[in-house]
Amino acid sequence: MNSKPRPRVVVVGAGFGGLTAARRMARLPVQVTVVDRKNHHTFQPLLYQVATAGLSPGDIAAPIRWILRTHPNIEVLLEEVRDFNLKARSVVTNEGVLPYDYLVIASGVSHAYFGHPEWEPLAPGLKTIEDALEIRRRVLLAFELAERQAAAGSADFPLNFVVIGAGPTGVELAGTLAEISRHVLAREFRAINPEQTRILLLEGGPRVLPPYSEGLSRKAQQQLEHLGVEVRTSSIVTRIEPGAVWVEDTRIPAQVLLWAAGVAASPLGRKLGAPVDHAGRVLVQPDLSIPDHPEVFVIGDLAYLQDESGKMLPGVAPVAMQQGEWVARTIARDLEHQPRRSFRYNDKGSLATIGRAAGVAQFKKFSLSGYFAWLAWLFIHIFFLIGFRNRVLVMIQWAWSYLTYERGARLITGSNELPGWTQSERGEATETVVAGKSRR
Amino acid sequence: MNSKPRPRVVVVGAGFGGLTAARRMARLPVQVTVVDRKNHHTFQPLLYQVATAGLSPGDIAAPIRWILRTHPNIEVLLEEVRDFNLKARSVVTNEGVLPYDYLVIASGVSHAYFGHPEWEPLAPGLKTIEDALEIRRRVLLAFELAERQAAAGSADFPLNFVVIGAGPTGVELAGTLAEISRHVLAREFRAINPEQTRILLLEGGPRVLPPYSEGLSRKAQQQLEHLGVEVRTSSIVTRIEPGAVWVEDTRIPAQVLLWAAGVAASPLGRKLGAPVDHAGRVLVQPDLSIPDHPEVFVIGDLAYLQDESGKMLPGVAPVAMQQGEWVARTIARDLEHQPRRSFRYNDKGSLATIGRAAGVAQFKKFSLSGYFAWLAWLFIHIFFLIGFRNRVLVMIQWAWSYLTYERGARLITGSNELPGWTQSERGEATETVVAGKSRR
Repeated sequence: MNSKPRPRVVVVGAGFGGLTAARRMARLPVQVTVVDRKNHHTFQPLLYQVATAGLSPGDIAAPIRWILRTHPNIEVLLEEVRDFNLKARSVVTNEGVLPYDYLVIASGVSHAYFGHPEWEPLAPGLKTIEDALEIRRRVLLAFELAERQAAAGSADFPLNFVVIGAGPTGVELAGTLAEISRHVLAREFRAINPEQTRILLLEGGPRVLPPYSEGLSRKAQQQLEHLGVEVRTSSIVTRIEPGAVWVEDTRIPAQVLLWAAGVAASPLGRKLGAPVDHAGRVLVQPDLSIPDHPEVFVIGDLAYLQDESGKMLPGVAPVAMQQGEWVARTIARDLEHQPRRSFRYNDKGSLATIGRAAGVAQFKKFSLSGYFAWLAWLFIHIFFLIGFRNRVLVMIQWAWSYLTYERGARLITGSNELPGWTQSERGEATETVVAGKSRR
Repeated sequence: MNSKPRPRVVVVGAGFGGLTAARRMARLPVQVTVVDRKNHHTFQPLLYQVATAGLSPGDIAAPIRWILRTHPNIEVLLEEVRDFNLKARSVVTNEGVLPYDYLVIASGVSHAYFGHPEWEPLAPGLKTIEDALEIRRRVLLAFELAERQAAAGSADFPLNFVVIGAGPTGVELAGTLAEISRHVLAREFRAINPEQTRILLLEGGPRVLPPYSEGLSRKAQQQLEHLGVEVRTSSIVTRIEPGAVWVEDTRIPAQVLLWAAGVAASPLGRKLGAPVDHAGRVLVQPDLSIPDHPEVFVIGDLAYLQDESGKMLPGVAPVAMQQGEWVARTIARDLEHQPRRSFRYNDKGSLATIGRAAGVAQFKKFSLSGYFAWLAWLFIHIFFLIGFRNRVLVMIQWAWSYLTYERGARLITGSNELPGWTQSERGEATETVVAGKSRR
C-alpha cells in the first residue's frame, strides 16, 4: 500500500467524453471526482426519439452514479461548475471549490441562434432530456390543437412543421415527424387528416448532411422527400416570430419550429484563458491539454483540434470517447514518467438515420444508404447504449413500433399552450349559446 | 340507415370511469365526445412506481386518442371544462361550448390539505404524471444533496423522508422508498450511506390502511416495519414548514415530505346545483344521474353513493369502471325505452402492495398477506394496464428490477433545488480558496 495521497482528477461533464475518461481511470492510482449539473448521462444520438415520442427519457438516460457504481475510486457530484482557478488548481462550483491535480473539461456545446437569442423560445433546440420533452409537447400538442380547431368548424388545416438545419439532428427530426404524421397518427383523428401535415426542412448550405459526401447527401434528400419531407437548401432564416419563420423575404407559417442549426461551446471554455475559435471551442495542444497547463485537458465537442489534413474533428461521440480514453492514458503515462504523445482520431465512419428503415452511412472504403444504412445505425446505437437493461428494452420497443407503427411515449406533460397558436373559432365560452349552434 | 341525428354524449374526464363509459358506448347509436385536459389516460394505481423511479411515465399512461382509435363514433378533444349549462344542455370549455343530449361527468378528485393550501408546494401529492415526476425529482435530489453535503465534510447525515397518510398510496410510497434506500442506492454513494435514511409514515387515524380489516392493517404495519419504515399512527400533522413537519408540538425534520392524506372532489361537482358531501362529491341517484336531470350522470371518485349497508363506495378503479359501464347500459335502455335500474357495486376485493414482494389482499371470503398478496396485486394490475405493449414492457421491467434491484427511470429533470434544504458547508465559492483546504 502506498501512503502517498493519490492524485485527484476532477472531470467536468459526464457526456461521452467525460464518462469515458472517468471509466478508463478506474484502475489507475488516482482519485476521480465527476461533476455534472445533471444526475444522468444522456445518450444524445437517440434524443430525437424522445422528442418524437418513440422512446421514454428513462430509455436513453442513466444515472451517472449508477454507471460508475462499481468503481470505488470514482465519486459523483451533482453540482454546476462556474469557474476555474488554474493557479490554485481548483474548480469553482455553485457549492464551493474542488481542488485537483488533473482537470478534464468535457462540458460540451449547446445551441447557437446566430446572435438571435430571442428565437430560442420560439424554436427550441435538442440537447437535453428537458429539450426533448418540450419538443415532444409541442409536436403532439399541435395535432391536438388542430383537431380542436377543425372540430369547431375551422375549414383549413394549417399544420406546418419547420425544422431549421439539415445536419444529422435536423434530418432525423424531419424524417421522424413525417413518419409520425403519415403513419402513427393517421387513423386517430376525426376532424383533421394528419397525413396532410407539411414538414419543411430548411438548410442554409447547398445540401443536406453537409459532413457527408455529395452522393450521400443526394440520397439522403431523396429518402427524405420519399417520406414526405419538403427539403429547401440554400435557405437562410432571417426572422422568427410566433407562428412563422422568414426565409429572406418569404414568410412561412409554422405551428411548430425546431432548431437544429448551430452550436455554441459551453461558456466554461472561455474561462481558461486559452485561445478559442469563433464558436468558443478551446484550441487544444496535440496531447489535448491547454497551453502552459499540462494538467488541464479539454475534450469532446468543447475541444478544437484538426486532423492531419487540417479539417476540424467533428463534434461526435466517437471523437469524444477516444479523447476521453486518450486523457486517461496520458495521465497513466505521466504517473509512470513516460513522455506524452499526440492524440489521433481513428475515424471508423459516420452514420445518420432518416426515418423508418432509411439512412446513410459513410465508411473509409465504402458507403451505404437506405435500409442497410439504417440497420447498421440501429445496431451500432443500441450496442453503445449505456446499460444492458436499456438496450434490451429499447430493442423490444423498436421492434414493437416497427411492426405496429405505434409510438409508446406520446404524453403531453406541462402546459397546453403553443406560442403563436390562434384561438379556436368555435366561439367564445358563454352560457347563452344554445345547444346545436356551435358544432356540426 | 337512420337519418335521425344520433344522440350526442359528452364524457368529461378520461380516467377509469369516463374511459369505460366511452368504450361501452362504441356500439350504441350515439355520437360520443370525450373531453379531457390531458392527452393521456393515467393508470393511477401505478403512479407511485413513476414517483419512485421504477417505471417511466410512458409505461403507465397512454394517449386517450390512441386507446379509442378504433371507434369511429368517438372523438377526443383536449380541452378543459369550466362549467355546465344544464338548461341549454351544453358544456362550457376553455375553447367554447359542446352541446349534449347526455352528459357523463367523471372528473375525479385531487388532493385536499385540510384547509392549508400553503402546504402543497412543501408536501406534494400524487394524482398526475406531473406530480409523480415532481416527487421523483425531490426523492432523487435529496440523496444527491446529502452526498454533496457529506462530501464537503458535513458530519451528520440528516436524510428524513416523511409520508403523510397511510392509505394505499402512502403505504406504497413509504414501502418503496424504504426498498430504494436499503437496496437500490446502497452501493452507489461514497460519502453517505443511503441505508441510514429514515422513512416515517404518519397516519392521523389509529391504524394503517383504514379500509381494510384490523388483522390486515396489523400485518401491513408489520411488513412496513420489516422493510424499515417507522410507522406512527394517531399522529395528526399540525404544521408544515420548509424542511420539517409538526405532529402536535413535536417538530420532525424532513428533507422530503409527501402528501397522501386527503382528497377533494373536482370543482366541477359543485357546478351542477346538486347536493354534495363535505368533500364536494355529488350525491347521485341510484341510477347515477343527478336530481331533475336524468340526462346527466356523475360517476367514479366524484360521485357519492352508499352500498346496501350504508357505507360509501370507495374511490377505487373498479367502482368507477362498473359505473361507467352502468351509464352506457342505462343510455342503451333509454334508447330502447326500457325503464332504468339501480346501480349495484360488485366488490371483487381490495389489494394493496407494500414493497418488493409484500402486500395485503382482502376478498369476500378470505384474505392474503405477504408474497401471495403481492403476486395477486402484480398480475391484476398488469392485466388491467391499458394497451398490450405497455403490459409486456412493464412486466419485463419489473422482472428485471426484481432480479437486480435496479430501477430504470432515476432521472432528475428540472430544477436542482429542494425547499428547506440548507446550503452546503464546503465554503462559499471564492477564487481565493487554496487547493486542498476545502475537501478531505
